[in-house]
Amino acid sequence: MDNPTSLRERLYIIVFQTDTVAGRRFDKTLLLIILASLVTVVLDSIDAVHQGYAGVLAAIEWGFTAIFLAEYLTRLYCSPKPLRYAFSFYGLVDLLAIVPGILALYYSDAQYLLIIRVIRMLRIFRVLKLSHYLKQANYLLDALRGSKQKIIVFLVSVSTLVTVFGTLMYVIEGPANGFTSIPTGIYWAIVTLTTVGFGDIVPKTALGQVLSSLVMITGYSIIAVPTGIFTAELANAMRGEQLRHECPRCSKQSHEHSAAFCSRCGSALFPG
Amino acid sequence: MDNPTSLRERLYIIVFQTDTVAGRRFDKTLLLIILASLVTVVLDSIDAVHQGYAGVLAAIEWGFTAIFLAEYLTRLYCSPKPLRYAFSFYGLVDLLAIVPGILALYYSDAQYLLIIRVIRMLRIFRVLKLSHYLKQANYLLDALRGSKQKIIVFLVSVSTLVTVFGTLMYVIEGPANGFTSIPTGIYWAIVTLTTVGFGDIVPKTALGQVLSSLVMITGYSIIAVPTGIFTAELANAMRGEQLRHECPRCSKQSHEHSAAFCSRCGSALFPG
Amino acid sequence: MDNPTSLRERLYIIVFQTDTVAGRRFDKTLLLIILASLVTVVLDSIDAVHQGYAGVLAAIEWGFTAIFLAEYLTRLYCSPKPLRYAFSFYGLVDLLAIVPGILALYYSDAQYLLIIRVIRMLRIFRVLKLSHYLKQANYLLDALRGSKQKIIVFLVSVSTLVTVFGTLMYVIEGPANGFTSIPTGIYWAIVTLTTVGFGDIVPKTALGQVLSSLVMITGYSIIAVPTGIFTAELANAMRGEQLRHECPRCSKQSHEHSAAFCSRCGSALFPG
Amino acid sequence: MDNPTSLRERLYIIVFQTDTVAGRRFDKTLLLIILASLVTVVLDSIDAVHQGYAGVLAAIEWGFTAIFLAEYLTRLYCSPKPLRYAFSFYGLVDLLAIVPGILALYYSDAQYLLIIRVIRMLRIFRVLKLSHYLKQANYLLDALRGSKQKIIVFLVSVSTLVTVFGTLMYVIEGPANGFTSIPTGIYWAIVTLTTVGFGDIVPKTALGQVLSSLVMITGYSIIAVPTGIFTAELANAMRGEQLRHECPRCSKQSHEHSAAFCSRCGSALFPG
Repeated sequence: MDNPTSLRERLYIIVFQTDTVAGRRFDKTLLLIILASLVTVVLDSIDAVHQGYAGVLAAIEWGFTAIFLAEYLTRLYCSPKPLRYAFSFYGLVDLLAIVPGILALYYSDAQYLLIIRVIRMLRIFRVLKLSHYLKQANYLLDALRGSKQKIIVFLVSVSTLVTVFGTLMYVIEGPANGFTSIPTGIYWAIVTLTTVGFGDIVPKTALGQVLSSLVMITGYSIIAVPTGIFTAELANAMRGEQLRHECPRCSKQSHEHSAAFCSRCGSALFPG
Repeated sequence: MDNPTSLRERLYIIVFQTDTVAGRRFDKTLLLIILASLVTVVLDSIDAVHQGYAGVLAAIEWGFTAIFLAEYLTRLYCSPKPLRYAFSFYGLVDLLAIVPGILALYYSDAQYLLIIRVIRMLRIFRVLKLSHYLKQANYLLDALRGSKQKIIVFLVSVSTLVTVFGTLMYVIEGPANGFTSIPTGIYWAIVTLTTVGFGDIVPKTALGQVLSSLVMITGYSIIAVPTGIFTAELANAMRGEQLRHECPRCSKQSHEHSAAFCSRCGSALFPG
Repeated sequence: MDNPTSLRERLYIIVFQTDTVAGRRFDKTLLLIILASLVTVVLDSIDAVHQGYAGVLAAIEWGFTAIFLAEYLTRLYCSPKPLRYAFSFYGLVDLLAIVPGILALYYSDAQYLLIIRVIRMLRIFRVLKLSHYLKQANYLLDALRGSKQKIIVFLVSVSTLVTVFGTLMYVIEGPANGFTSIPTGIYWAIVTLTTVGFGDIVPKTALGQVLSSLVMITGYSIIAVPTGIFTAELANAMRGEQLRHECPRCSKQSHEHSAAFCSRCGSALFPG
Repeated sequence: MDNPTSLRERLYIIVFQTDTVAGRRFDKTLLLIILASLVTVVLDSIDAVHQGYAGVLAAIEWGFTAIFLAEYLTRLYCSPKPLRYAFSFYGLVDLLAIVPGILALYYSDAQYLLIIRVIRMLRIFRVLKLSHYLKQANYLLDALRGSKQKIIVFLVSVSTLVTVFGTLMYVIEGPANGFTSIPTGIYWAIVTLTTVGFGDIVPKTALGQVLSSLVMITGYSIIAVPTGIFTAELANAMRGEQLRHECPRCSKQSHEHSAAFCSRCGSALFPG
């Protein structure tokens, strides 16, 4: 595909690839259109705006649907394997971006269409994923991947804690003080353990306040655990990038960034 | 016990051990049953569910009690030392899993049985403890063990802080503004210092608000302390793992990152 | 400018430079005046104080305006390039410090002048920036600069999260429970994700509370991300300082901790 | 003072020193008495308890005052330099522990005596300071000392932020929405920035909510700064302890804990 001659091949490069000037420009334009369609959805949800500009917003929404439809058809047309594209994750997200506009013809006030309209936002990640200027995200993802197992252990422990604390509070405080059921107690325990503290449900009895204090101090202390896990992993990921480089003689794995000689045995790292 | 022939020996391996396929399958089934019994307890506490399905839930609860009873008797039967098992920590927890169902025959609406029913949840740890795919938890436990003393020093300091701040707020704000006693003041100080901030008790006087600001900034800053302790310990625990590298002469296990000579016997780590 | 003879040159050194005794004394005096003018603004906003001392405070404000005017004119007079100073960032901030006093002649009760009066506070940074005893701030700024890109990735992800969560809560809870529009939902999502938890808008439906729990646990966990980024960068910045150690042959400044040979030229770092 | 013969010398060793069995026993007894006197103060503040047991609590309080008086006189008697002790920090704290009981003879319901009674708590630190099993606290204090300057820079920046944000919110929201003055705005900004979020004052206008979101995300992000500072310093302090040890030949400063040979030049660390 070095010399694309047909329109289809040229379109493919613009629409699906990102390493040409035209491809990047297409992605940036698409990003702006997605954000604009999102702003329309958000504005439409404000009552005052909806009352005054319902017609205008509906027209704009129609415009976006038309653009996304055109884009979807183009993608289908220029893709080498249209069916495979159509059933891929991003193919389905692209399709979902058109659906609300068409469904709106039949269901005029469908609240639940909103969610589909917001799902369009997922398309942002299609654009971001392809872009080259977000390499820094890799460090974060590496660190998250490295700490996945520890995070799961942590979440299981937290789930146990909130279940036990939630049940205890339900028994101690009871429905009269707002703890109407164990799920409510668990909800309260999560609100408290994460130090959010809405204050819609609060302990009223002395014993409940003592137990709450325990939950709060626990929550305040164990916030250290995910932070510690992530920091240790991120420091590892960052050090790894800088240092991974094997010495040809002593096989020392890690060296200073831009080292010419092995700092252990003194032999040249790049001989010849 | 290499060739278990009797039923009792085969049962022992399935019920108490985890390194066979049957043993792991037993543990997984048990885990699911425990979680299901927990969900029943939680659902039963919701008023609407309790009113509509009280009979069904009671029957399910009876079923779980029967299963746990059967399991407990099996454990007693196949254990080489039944008495020692019966009075061990997990033996008592296993017994507690049966008690509520039997007590419920006499006390029909006993709220406090709930807690015992939730204690069943502790049995999850029996299953988790034995499993092999949670080795990552060891890092976390090592780090927690290493930071135990520092955490105690931290908790003593925090206790002193909340007592002093709680008393000051009681004196400054007084019962008229919700600070009805020193324990209430201490409760408020914990709510504030841990940045939970329910908002059920808030300072009303100018002096109280100034002091609150001090408490909040203190709480916001000292959250760094447990995090710092834990991160430093975790980084230590993880580095320990990385640096393990055996000396060819004296077999010393761990060396400094980038060491050329063994720090114990002085011989070159990478001869030749 | 080693031997300043003219008044203008001597003034320049006092007013613009900080490495003489007179210059530092001038900066300290200016800092005190700025803080005093700020205290006046703050006190004036308290209704009881405004009613009782409006005249006194207005007079004090006039005094400060006069001092800042005199300072501005002095800076214009002694600056080698007055126009360049007048249109520099700090030149404009210095001008803004005078404006409110003069505008107050025409608009007697202008609330919005307050903001300009508080902008005077920016002048504190002029003084601090020049001072030498805040070198520690460099570590912090280095760490922030190094983590800038990662922080942007983090903020984009957080923005996506709060938009999606805010829309979902708007659809689930609806205007009846206080979620009057998507922007309100996003506001609530930010309040919850950052663990602030005002409690002015709270979920009432069961589904809403489940989703809230998810938001809270997400917020509680991802607080680790900025902390991890910053800690790793700060540790890097501080280690950089420690490892600075000059090679006797090629003068390479920094080496790995415990390096025996220079990683650039291979010569022994500690010969003999 | 190797062979204390006089009563005064023996008392001095028991009362002031901690390296004898008797001294440690004295300290532990004192710690219990201080905590008991604190519990009395706390209980007395609860209205129900005060009404029912006022007489008993007053008698107990008298007992504690008598004990502390006896202790103070003993300290004065056995101290080699009584005057110097009397005007030292702990001497004054010891005196303060007696004052409330005596003042209570004249002012029967003095609320403010409470604070002095709680100041007794400071005496806990006298006991803790002397004890040997709290060496771990030194790491924490070292880390805090090392990060002092950075913490000051951080607190100055936070102060600037809350002043600017508080003023902006006062101008935007105004007294009608609870932001009655700039100090109230600053109080709100602290409540929000530290993620406490009481909810007693909340933004009502759209612009106020946008600005609040900014404050919250700022607060959520900069919590990383003290954590990062403290973690980096603590890691340094812990590594420092383990590694500080100079090589006699190449002067390498830091070595692995329990190293026998220098890992850089291979020479014995403890020759001979």
